[in-house]
Amino acid sequence: MDSFSATVDRMPALRSSISKNPERYRVLTGERPTGQLHLGHYVGTIRERVRLQDAGVETFVILADYQVITDRDTAGAVRDHVYSAALDYLAAGIDPACSTIFTHSAVPELNQLFLPFLSLVTEAELHRNPTVKAEQLSSGRALNGLLLTYPVHQAADILFCKGNLVPVGKDNLPHVEVTRTIARRFNERYGEVFPEPEALITESPELPGLDGRKMSKSYGNTITLAMSEDETARKIRKAPTDAERTITYDPDTRPGVSALLETASVCLGQPPQDIADEIGSTGSGALKNLTTEAVNEFLRDLRRRRAALDIADAAEVLRAGNYAARRIAAETLQETRAAMGMHY
Amino acid sequence: MDSFSATVDRMPALRSSISKNPERYRVLTGERPTGQLHLGHYVGTIRERVRLQDAGVETFVILADYQVITDRDTAGAVRDHVYSAALDYLAAGIDPACSTIFTHSAVPELNQLFLPFLSLVTEAELHRNPTVKAEQLSSGRALNGLLLTYPVHQAADILFCKGNLVPVGKDNLPHVEVTRTIARRFNERYGEVFPEPEALITESPELPGLDGRKMSKSYGNTITLAMSEDETARKIRKAPTDAERTITYDPDTRPGVSALLETASVCLGQPPQDIADEIGSTGSGALKNLTTEAVNEFLRDLRRRRAALDIADAAEVLRAGNYAARRIAAETLQETRAAMGMHY
Repeated sequence: MDSFSATVDRMPALRSSISKNPERYRVLTGERPTGQLHLGHYVGTIRERVRLQDAGVETFVILADYQVITDRDTAGAVRDHVYSAALDYLAAGIDPACSTIFTHSAVPELNQLFLPFLSLVTEAELHRNPTVKAEQLSSGRALNGLLLTYPVHQAADILFCKGNLVPVGKDNLPHVEVTRTIARRFNERYGEVFPEPEALITESPELPGLDGRKMSKSYGNTITLAMSEDETARKIRKAPTDAERTITYDPDTRPGVSALLETASVCLGQPPQDIADEIGSTGSGALKNLTTEAVNEFLRDLRRRRAALDIADAAEVLRAGNYAARRIAAETLQETRAAMGMHY
Repeated sequence: MDSFSATVDRMPALRSSISKNPERYRVLTGERPTGQLHLGHYVGTIRERVRLQDAGVETFVILADYQVITDRDTAGAVRDHVYSAALDYLAAGIDPACSTIFTHSAVPELNQLFLPFLSLVTEAELHRNPTVKAEQLSSGRALNGLLLTYPVHQAADILFCKGNLVPVGKDNLPHVEVTRTIARRFNERYGEVFPEPEALITESPELPGLDGRKMSKSYGNTITLAMSEDETARKIRKAPTDAERTITYDPDTRPGVSALLETASVCLGQPPQDIADEIGSTGSGALKNLTTEAVNEFLRDLRRRRAALDIADAAEVLRAGNYAARRIAAETLQETRAAMGMHY
């Protein structure tokens, strides 16, 4: 994929530009609040957000609540998940004094941008998005209108605040491309309003779930950030391993053991092979103890901070974040309406 | 078409219910502001709106500015068309004291409803809409995301104010069906929020353009409401007729002459054949004079009222209407968010 390797090639220069001139960048990042945030989220994306924020990059974190219903019939416990994620963010070091945490559904002016943006992409382009196809297949349901169009809605998420930097895994590069296309077409048609955001490819390894499969709430193979140390220990104790006493790292033939090694590895900052050698033939019990200790130590400060917060803190941070996001969205919407001649 | 004849069968009972209990109904109706409103709009829809309003039915009139870009690359002089339409409405008797005139783009809370609604229809259902197909073909362009989804956006137009009555020509019955489906599915999934609106099939004949083709700004065959009497006379003088002196009503073989007869007919309230007989063999000059006089007389009061208004009146009525529409939309949005569990 040409555009992918070109983007990868740009990364060193982009990272250097960010650290030299953080004030030139505005990041949009976030999650679908479909469940509780877990260790995979933390090492995969949240930690990177905190780094960018602490480097001086203005950061917007969206809890994309409407995206919850792209592939299911109910929003479920979306409110609990939103509050829980807000607490996780605060505990992880997202600082509401310099970052804006907000929900989709509370920012009508952002959602309105979806309309002119939809006019800028053809149906054929909507169908070409590989992520939409993959998500529809994995949902096992008919493609609904919101799933079909969600990359365009995501463009509104990014562009409402004129975000120009979007941290993504390589699978999500097509979303940033759609957003760049929409920004370019809008500007060509109506006059310069939007930046063409750059993808910041995050290099974190994808952490498997405790059973070696993809980490997912629906598989029950995650360690959530909100768990206590005891719950973490119990969860790891129940993880499937195998009968061989000597611990080795081999994801293909020993998925359970290797998943525990990788989990310990990201927490300890050591290669999984080294940890396996250290444990040697003391068996999976020893591996589980080591992994439990590593995870609990790794998350200890975060969880201590999280325990000192409550729902009222989450509600307060969302109130302030939603208010700030609406102010910015209203300004951007006003600009687009003026550019389109829709000001009365 | 079953659903069509069933709807037609309901009309007498519906009309009787409206006149007995007008306070039970709330109408949503409107236009795409793609050009100036003309005689066809007036006799086709605007007059009916005024009747409903005057019968005591609360009326919302939307100027659907975002729908302008479903089938073209630019919003054009959308602002002029919106102001002009607002003046036409006022002059036609839409009374801002009991009816709400507003624009799409000024009501973000309405537009946000588009998101949950999109999740309630499948892509296959979007494709099944005959109007979408017809409009895409006539636009001669690739189907864009906004045209594909506009019936869902129209559902938001109708349901934001809990409109339960939608005056439509029979071609637009599928739109009301989409809205009913969306209301029903939302209520089933999240709890009762929306009414299932009924179609009120308008029986006005479709007035042809002055050349006998479909009346359309792009054919230049319309008499706009804003024209002066002299402009109207000039426009009718230039209408294409034929060399035969004896005037007869025959739309198939004499489209120009018959279009003038139909135009005079709607203004005079006489059958076109009677008008043809009256003119007899005095030729198309006499027909044009009679038609000009009929149109100018028919629109005289409206135009007199329109001439007494200016852009500031249009701006004021839109400001008030947009404000009122936003208040209602914000309430409805709040209800949907609470029903979906998205209240923080």
